[in-house]
Formats: sequence, structure tokens, C-alpha cells
Amino acid sequence: MSQFHPVSINDIQAAQQRLSGIAHHTPVLTSRIVNDRTQSQVFFKCENFQRTGAFKFRGAYNALAQLSPAQKQQGVLTFSSGNHGQAIALAGQLLHIPTTIVMPDDAPGVKQTATRSYGAEVILYNRQQTNREELAHNLASDRHLTLIPPYDHPHVIAGQGTTALELVQEVGELDLLLVCCGGGGLIAGCAIAAKALFPNLRVIGVEPTLADDATRSFYTKTLQTVTNSDTIADGARTPSLGQITFPLVLQYVDDMVTVSEAAIIRTMFFLWERLKIVVEPTGVLAAAAILENVVTAPGMKIGVIISGGNVDLTQIAKLFTE
Amino acid sequence: MSQFHPVSINDIQAAQQRLSGIAHHTPVLTSRIVNDRTQSQVFFKCENFQRTGAFKFRGAYNALAQLSPAQKQQGVLTFSSGNHGQAIALAGQLLHIPTTIVMPDDAPGVKQTATRSYGAEVILYNRQQTNREELAHNLASDRHLTLIPPYDHPHVIAGQGTTALELVQEVGELDLLLVCCGGGGLIAGCAIAAKALFPNLRVIGVEPTLADDATRSFYTKTLQTVTNSDTIADGARTPSLGQITFPLVLQYVDDMVTVSEAAIIRTMFFLWERLKIVVEPTGVLAAAAILENVVTAPGMKIGVIISGGNVDLTQIAKLFTE
Repeated sequence: MSQFHPVSINDIQAAQQRLSGIAHHTPVLTSRIVNDRTQSQVFFKCENFQRTGAFKFRGAYNALAQLSPAQKQQGVLTFSSGNHGQAIALAGQLLHIPTTIVMPDDAPGVKQTATRSYGAEVILYNRQQTNREELAHNLASDRHLTLIPPYDHPHVIAGQGTTALELVQEVGELDLLLVCCGGGGLIAGCAIAAKALFPNLRVIGVEPTLADDATRSFYTKTLQTVTNSDTIADGARTPSLGQITFPLVLQYVDDMVTVSEAAIIRTMFFLWERLKIVVEPTGVLAAAAILENVVTAPGMKIGVIISGGNVDLTQIAKLFTE
Repeated sequence: MSQFHPVSINDIQAAQQRLSGIAHHTPVLTSRIVNDRTQSQVFFKCENFQRTGAFKFRGAYNALAQLSPAQKQQGVLTFSSGNHGQAIALAGQLLHIPTTIVMPDDAPGVKQTATRSYGAEVILYNRQQTNREELAHNLASDRHLTLIPPYDHPHVIAGQGTTALELVQEVGELDLLLVCCGGGGLIAGCAIAAKALFPNLRVIGVEPTLADDATRSFYTKTLQTVTNSDTIADGARTPSLGQITFPLVLQYVDDMVTVSEAAIIRTMFFLWERLKIVVEPTGVLAAAAILENVVTAPGMKIGVIISGGNVDLTQIAKLFTE
């Protein structure tokens, strides 16, 4: 396979400079209970404490900060199941760039409200009836807005990569890094960053079994899709990896695994109860892989990205009482 | 009033040494949303991330570590609505001291299970029918165990004081420190520690309106009690301040306020949803005072102790869906 370099460690280091003092340097949590249970040393990088409640702010700000003055004045548009939308909205507010967010009408209410609270215009669509990319491209074209996609963009990927860069800068070499995978922006950026510093580190992506397109794409080396998945991990409902992220995943990721809906809910309950952190379903995917023994790595140092914490508490609470 | 010195800043500094590398140095979280809403700078000292999920581990370990070899060999006993029991159980496990915990039979299941998991013997009693102090004293006497009460003990108070010591060491001078108040061990220790470093700092205690005995005691300067309170903040159901903590509260605390059950639940929801942290009802008392405008301090630097995060998720979740 030819080497493909739309994002380098230099881009990720430059993103880290750009985000310094603007994105949160999120805490890394450890837990004796987790270490005992997994017989390994686990470091949770808690992007649920990131601004807007998810890692997405890193990529969004990194992309918006690099627009031309003319692009900034016209404004930007994006499509997002929620967290990327909020991230773009806040980045726009900070950089004085008008933002328009196209969002499925079943996105959690807390995400819609938060996005509007950052001054963005929110346009809702029905996931069953509308192709969001098409809608977004048409709107962007009609309104002369720059489209910032949620993952398939080099500046977005570089921004997300700062998550793993920060983690390994803080805890040193890891044997294994577990990252959730939706469109592949986070895992691609994190794999590039972590392996640039520690080439022997293995990166494993984690998807819901109900939205296993990236896992199938990884194994068949052909882009696979998933349509309108019902997984509770709404951030992983993305139809497929992107034109940029797919080759990066093939090049930098060592393996892909999937976890069941029941494993996602059990892990969410465990992290809330024992680590005292609120994590959204997509945010627990990587943790579920190790806590549910889908991946075992006894004696190893393992990084786990907790990607976000935006939940509709009234909805999630129902899961815990069932 | 005569000065009363069962606990000095030296005792608290010695406790900090004793706890170094054993208790967690818990993170301090800040939130732009909270600062905007309160028009102040709020620093949340997150003892929900402490070992056993609450500040109680500090006092328990500090007390057990100072027992004589003979006392350690015989073992210790305590009575506790939950968190102090878990804390004694873990401290006992770490110091190889047998522990017996007397606990109300309506304490959250997660607390009972966790306490037993540290190797403690748990003895349950009915809160409506039994005086827990009497039961505990009788058991301790019969079994030759050293009784470590949950708050009315100089070594426990000194241990709890390390919470505020750590906070002001990290964030510098504060104008105001808000601390929840049950039996008064945490607030007494924190007030002594914080004022030793910053004499102009004001300390305000926060109780549930349904268990306002310390507030009434503070204002009348006579020890008041509350019996079998139904407050959701189970850590504040303690019948009264103690013989040691009451004079300390009178001497070191500047004011006492109360918050309603509805305010406690709203604040819990807010902290879970926006700060992404799991906090128990008692743990949100201090935060509720500032977020619900019971205390207003525009422009000030405010420390807020988040005392613990041990909840029965299945029970709490019901509150959020009602």
C-alpha cells in the first residue's frame, strides 16, 4: 500500500500549539478496581471533561482557526450527530465565525440546546429520509459557507490527534491504545500521534457491533457502510469511514473490535458508579473493550480514550432503572 | 468564648504527610458555565474522586494510622451512614487492622457492598428503633474494639481538614469556602486549615433544610438535634454536631445556611449534566448554596467541597426521570 500523509505528527503538534490555553488539558484518571479487574494498568483520558463535553472541540477549533479571513467572515456549516456540532458552534463563537449546524432531529435534546446556546443556527433533518451530506453540501453551496465535515478533514483529524498526544506526553509510553471509532477522525489522529512518539504502541479501534462498518472495512480493506444503525452509541452511527480516514485507519490502526449494546450499557454503569464520571454511550466504547474482555492485555500499560460525556440524563437514567 | 484547640493546623499538616501517596490528591474542577451563572470564580474540590468515593477516607486513615500496636491488633469499630464505614474498612485493609462497621439497614446497597468488599464485618441496624451510638459503644466494649466515630474525634477532624489544605495549596487564597455539614468533622477541619493559611477567608456551612440542626445550633449557640431526617442527603442525617465539632464550628465557621430538597436534586442534575461528575446528594450541598443563590458572592473566589460520589445509580436515576 502506498503511504498516505494528509496528517503528520507536525500537524498534530501545530494543532496542540493552536489549542493551548483554549482547549482543556483534560485529566487522566486511574482506578485500582479497573487495574485489578483487567490485570493491567489503565489510563483513562477523560475528554468528557473537554469543552462542549467531548474531544470534538479539538478538531473543530483547529479547523476553524486555519480558515482564511474571507471564509471566516462568510461562516461555516457542518453536519453532526451532536458533539461535532456543539464543537463547531463554540469554536465559531470564540473565533467570531458564524456557524450553521445540520443535525438529525433525534439527536439528544441536551446537544441541540447546547449547540444553540453557543449562537449557532441549528437545522434539523430526519435521519430516515434525508442524506445529511447531500443536504449539508447543498446548504453550504447556496449560502456560501465553508463546510467543515465531522471527521473527513485533515485539520479536524490533526486536532483530534492532540488527545493521544497529551495522553502519552503525560503518562509516557503505552503498550496499547484503545479508541472508539465512528467516522475515524479520532482514531486516525490518535494513532498518528501516539505512534510518532512510540512506534511500538499498538492501536485498537472499538465499534458497536450494531455499527461495525469500520471493522468490516478494516478486515476486507474495502470501504463498508452501515445504514441507520440503532446502536445506543449515537456518535458511532456514522455510515462509514471517510475518504481520508479510511486509508489512515488501514495504515495506522493495528486491529478493530466490536462490543455489544449490553456491554456498552454495563460499562457505562460501571464508569458512572465506580469512577464517578458521566460518560456517554459512544464515550465508553474503548473502555468496554477492556472491561468486557474483548481485548485482554495482562501486565500492559493501556490508554483508553473516554471520548465524551454528553447525555440526556432523563433518557440514560431509564437504562439504569430497567 | 474560651479558645478550644483539639485540632491545630500542625495536626492537619501532619495528617497530610501521613496521607501522602495513600489518599488521592483529588482534582479541582472549574466550569465557565458555573462562573457565568454565579458571576464568581468557583473551584470544585472533587472528593467524589477520593478513594472509597468520599473525603471520609482522609480522616479514617489518619485516625487508624495513629492507633497503638495493641489497638491495631484488636481492631476497630465504627457506626456510619456509609462513607465513613467504607473509609474505615479500606483504611483497616491497608493498615492490616480488623474492622467492624455498624450501618443503618437503609444505607444505599452500593455502600454496604463496597464496605464488605474491603474485608469489613458489617452489622446492620434499624434507624427508627436503635440508637446507633449506644449500639456501637456496647459492641466495642464487648469485643474490645477501639471505636472510631465518624466525626467527633480529633484525628478524624484533622484528616478531613487536609481536603481544604490541598485546595488552597493548589488554587491560592479564596474569599469564601463552602462546605457541607453533617456531624461537622469536615467543616471543622477545613475551616481550621483554610483560615490558618488565609485568615480573611470566610467559611460557610451548608445543611439540608430537613436536617438543619447545625444551623440552629450555630445561631442559638446551644446544641440542637434532628431526629431521623428524611433528607435525601443521607450523609447529613447525623443527629447533631459533636462535643468536639460543635465548639469548633462556633469558633471557626462564619455562617451556616440551608438548602431545600428540590435545590439538592436540581444541583445534582446540573453537576452530573454539565460538569460530567457523579456526585451524591450530600456531596452537592455546598454547590447548591452558590448555584441556587442561597449564598451570593459576585466577583469572589469561592472554594466548594464536593464531598462524595457514592450513589445507588438505580435509585438516583429514578429522581432524574420523575
